[in-house]
Amino acid sequence: MKKHIKALQNLIGQENVKADKPHRLAYSYDATREHFEPDVVVFPKDEEDVSKILRYCNEHKIPVVPRGAGSGFTGGALPVGGGVVLAVEKYMNKILEIDTKNMVAVVQPGVINKDLQREVEKHGLFYPPDPASQDYSTLGGNVAENAGGMRAAKYGITKDYVMALRAVLPNGDIIRAGKRTIKDVAGYNIPGILIASEGTLAVITEITLKLLSKPKLTKTVMGVFPTVTAAMNAVYKSLAGGANPVAMEFLDNLTIRAVEEKFHKGLPVEAGAILISDIDGNVEEEIDYQIGLLEKFFKQNGATEFRIAKDEKEAADIWFARRNASQSITIYGSKKINEDVTVPRSELPRYLEEVEKISKKYNVKIPCFGHTGDGNVHTNVMVDGSDPKQVEIGYKAIEEIFQMTIDIGGTLSGEHGIGLSKAPFMKMAFSEAELGLFRRIKEAFDPNNILNPGKMGL
Amino acid sequence: MKKHIKALQNLIGQENVKADKPHRLAYSYDATREHFEPDVVVFPKDEEDVSKILRYCNEHKIPVVPRGAGSGFTGGALPVGGGVVLAVEKYMNKILEIDTKNMVAVVQPGVINKDLQREVEKHGLFYPPDPASQDYSTLGGNVAENAGGMRAAKYGITKDYVMALRAVLPNGDIIRAGKRTIKDVAGYNIPGILIASEGTLAVITEITLKLLSKPKLTKTVMGVFPTVTAAMNAVYKSLAGGANPVAMEFLDNLTIRAVEEKFHKGLPVEAGAILISDIDGNVEEEIDYQIGLLEKFFKQNGATEFRIAKDEKEAADIWFARRNASQSITIYGSKKINEDVTVPRSELPRYLEEVEKISKKYNVKIPCFGHTGDGNVHTNVMVDGSDPKQVEIGYKAIEEIFQMTIDIGGTLSGEHGIGLSKAPFMKMAFSEAELGLFRRIKEAFDPNNILNPGKMGL
Ligand SMILES: Cc1cc2nc3c(=O)[nH]c(=O)nc-3n(C[C@H](O)[C@H](O)[C@H](O)COP(=O)(O)OP(=O)(O)OC[C@H]3O[C@@H](n4cnc5c(N)ncnc54)[C@H](O)[C@@H]3O)c2cc1C
Ligand SMILES: Cc1cc2nc3c(=O)[nH]c(=O)nc-3n(C[C@H](O)[C@H](O)[C@H](O)COP(=O)(O)OP(=O)(O)OC[C@H]3O[C@@H](n4cnc5c(N)ncnc54)[C@H](O)[C@@H]3O)c2cc1C
Repeated sequence: MKKHIKALQNLIGQENVKADKPHRLAYSYDATREHFEPDVVVFPKDEEDVSKILRYCNEHKIPVVPRGAGSGFTGGALPVGGGVVLAVEKYMNKILEIDTKNMVAVVQPGVINKDLQREVEKHGLFYPPDPASQDYSTLGGNVAENAGGMRAAKYGITKDYVMALRAVLPNGDIIRAGKRTIKDVAGYNIPGILIASEGTLAVITEITLKLLSKPKLTKTVMGVFPTVTAAMNAVYKSLAGGANPVAMEFLDNLTIRAVEEKFHKGLPVEAGAILISDIDGNVEEEIDYQIGLLEKFFKQNGATEFRIAKDEKEAADIWFARRNASQSITIYGSKKINEDVTVPRSELPRYLEEVEKISKKYNVKIPCFGHTGDGNVHTNVMVDGSDPKQVEIGYKAIEEIFQMTIDIGGTLSGEHGIGLSKAPFMKMAFSEAELGLFRRIKEAFDPNNILNPGKMGL
Repeated sequence: MKKHIKALQNLIGQENVKADKPHRLAYSYDATREHFEPDVVVFPKDEEDVSKILRYCNEHKIPVVPRGAGSGFTGGALPVGGGVVLAVEKYMNKILEIDTKNMVAVVQPGVINKDLQREVEKHGLFYPPDPASQDYSTLGGNVAENAGGMRAAKYGITKDYVMALRAVLPNGDIIRAGKRTIKDVAGYNIPGILIASEGTLAVITEITLKLLSKPKLTKTVMGVFPTVTAAMNAVYKSLAGGANPVAMEFLDNLTIRAVEEKFHKGLPVEAGAILISDIDGNVEEEIDYQIGLLEKFFKQNGATEFRIAKDEKEAADIWFARRNASQSITIYGSKKINEDVTVPRSELPRYLEEVEKISKKYNVKIPCFGHTGDGNVHTNVMVDGSDPKQVEIGYKAIEEIFQMTIDIGGTLSGEHGIGLSKAPFMKMAFSEAELGLFRRIKEAFDPNNILNPGKMGL
């Protein structure tokens, strides 16, 4: 490896190739808190550097793991087989262009999601995908994971905004794909396959993103429901009835109680569930129309309270519970096994009833909250992390939840990807023919299997 | 071949395998009017039949060309090397489900686009992609070509609606990809790569499409401009200024004159261009807001007239010119070489100025009209089809238009795909590295190159 480190230093500059212990440690983690040390961390200055690194590593069959901010929840950025971590966040972090004429932004992969949002909003524009990690996750990581966020119900997810990419293939070849146009059907849809490819097919070096006009108005509403089932019925019936909220978030009773216990905000601790929605638009009447629809469907499905925030302060109060859900539920256990399964919206009532059963069967608490507007429920199995028995039980419960999710037409992952953590479950979700096709696609891009090997169950 | 025909008959039934001359002729054409006879036409009853056909043909290395309605404009459905045409429109043409709860439709590939639109509208739902061929083109063909339509400016194109697919690989393997959920990031994005793959990677056997709520109101407006440049400035400035029309269609002076000559509708024959827009929404005030934006930007950019249709009749009158553009321009020449290049919207003024120059240079008329809201200009080089010299000049002009389009950041094809017709120009648009990647992807799906060989310049 010493030889290779020297060679990489010659290629991209000594100061940009780090094999010291602090660097290797700093780049051995991601949000899974698992830990694999790379042999070396490289900081490419530009696409040319990325190309040089990959060409060299491909020739010498050295694993390369692309890395953004390391906020991934499934271990995508972990160098499980050692080798090189290729970190784009140090230099390749510039917003290259905000093209207001075509409503498009061109960015390097290391740009932080929120930085782009802020910058485009100065121009009256809007980049909707807003993962909860928006303050630190990179747009390269967002594309590689096809990240979603709260606004997905109305505005879709990362893939709905990627117009074009530049990327470097494992052999060092630089490719461009897509155009600054809504329509482009020349050649295979390479952006389509690179989105959600989790750093296993190519290193993304430039991203062209579609922007929208920023809506002028937003209002927030909240509904309180006696049971989760009532709330879940309200979710899919509102949407099928024509409502088009930006977000449709939910908290179950366990989550409500946890937030209340921590923050004493006067939340309805007897409620089965709360729904929180933002509605946006350009004219008051459109917002009122949308709120009217939500009120109608919430009440028809048993809401005992429907509240419209009068101002920003009240809206912030309503959102407070949702924003603090994740940290509050730790009262139920020191270890949180949290999953991001997603089901067809009409299956939400059934999904949560089944989770309830599994919770009883294993005698573990499973607080749930999340993005019900798109069927994505954050399902948190809470256990005592210091008790290996409990942890084992927790994982058994999760496995049963996965199988149930797939049985009702859902997916293993709505947001966080497969990476390392969900790799063992790929066989549950895909047939041998499907997995075989994945492997052949991987080979078409990366015949030597140097790019992020050992991920996605391939 | 006789032996193979017999074998195919054994596999899927004698009555569903046709090698007689009338059938071979009937399936030798598409909208390009080019002509290649298949050896045999097969009509699978279901996915199982598709699988049997492909498995057999793969084993015996017989070319298979999937076919929907044959309305393709680039020869995608033409069996250039003979072999089997696999026609899905005869049996595999059922709408399997309209899931109003999840706002999703599940269809077989042979369903006609407009039939789905009509059916979902009965439930208050809306399938936006509306290619001009919507009355006969199939949804399988739409997915394979990633078809666009008039509503793309606001609602996007086919790819924005495909949630899941079932497909058969060339080796006969049946795969499912995607879910009935907005979010699904497990495994590679197979729908992403099958969209726009022009029948070269797999035969699509089932499509799950996202539906929207049908907006309650629509209004139509028209602007008259002294020059094409003024109109094109109005297009991109309105959109960048927050307008979000369903469609933003344009006719240039040559096209206006042609329609007027044929239909005597009192069109402004001195105008440089007309813009036509539909605006939709659920409340009057939202529509008025949008119309206000268009009026402001149209007038700021030199519109001499801005008309709002008072009722459906007036709207139909306004749209009449656009709907009859294609057939009217034949007054300029018996042969129309029509292209669907697409440029970034801000480049529309320059694009049309360059087309004007090329028109003068080659002394050919090039009427233009189309979907300027998404940068997609139907560019029609009109020549005397009986004069080979003229036809040659026409193709030279087209080639220059392609190069110019690429130079200003546009694409060879916004709608119609590459197929046979644009295959010679792939090298203009893509590097050797990019074409190499396309070939390796093709190989990953179709190692024996049996599926629609000879297309897309691979
Ligand atoms: C508190 C918290 C909240 C979160 N909330 C959400 C949420 O709401 N929605 C959601 O979708 N996710 C969420 N996540 C998960 C995570 O933030 C996303 O997956 C994010 O997209 C990862 O970005 P990153 O820059 O941190 O990527 P990393 O973790 O560094 O990498 C993730 C994957 O992308 C690959 N990758 C990174 N950069 C590139 C590149 N330039 N080219 C090729 N491959 C690359 C890596 O190899 C790896 O496989 C959350 C995470 C945390 C910690
Ligand atoms: C008058 C006219 C107007 C048009 N307007 C538009 C327009 O506005 N926008 C637009 O985008 N296009 C337009 N087109 C082009 C054409 O209608 C579209 O490309 C359409 O999507 C083709 O559908 P089809 O069923 O006719 O497919 P076909 O022509 O039969 O096939 C097209 C391609 O799709 C493949 N294919 C078909 N079915 C399958 C399947 N089940 N599995 C895999 N591959 C398959 C074929 O192999 C072929 O490569 C127009 C065509 C005409 C004649």
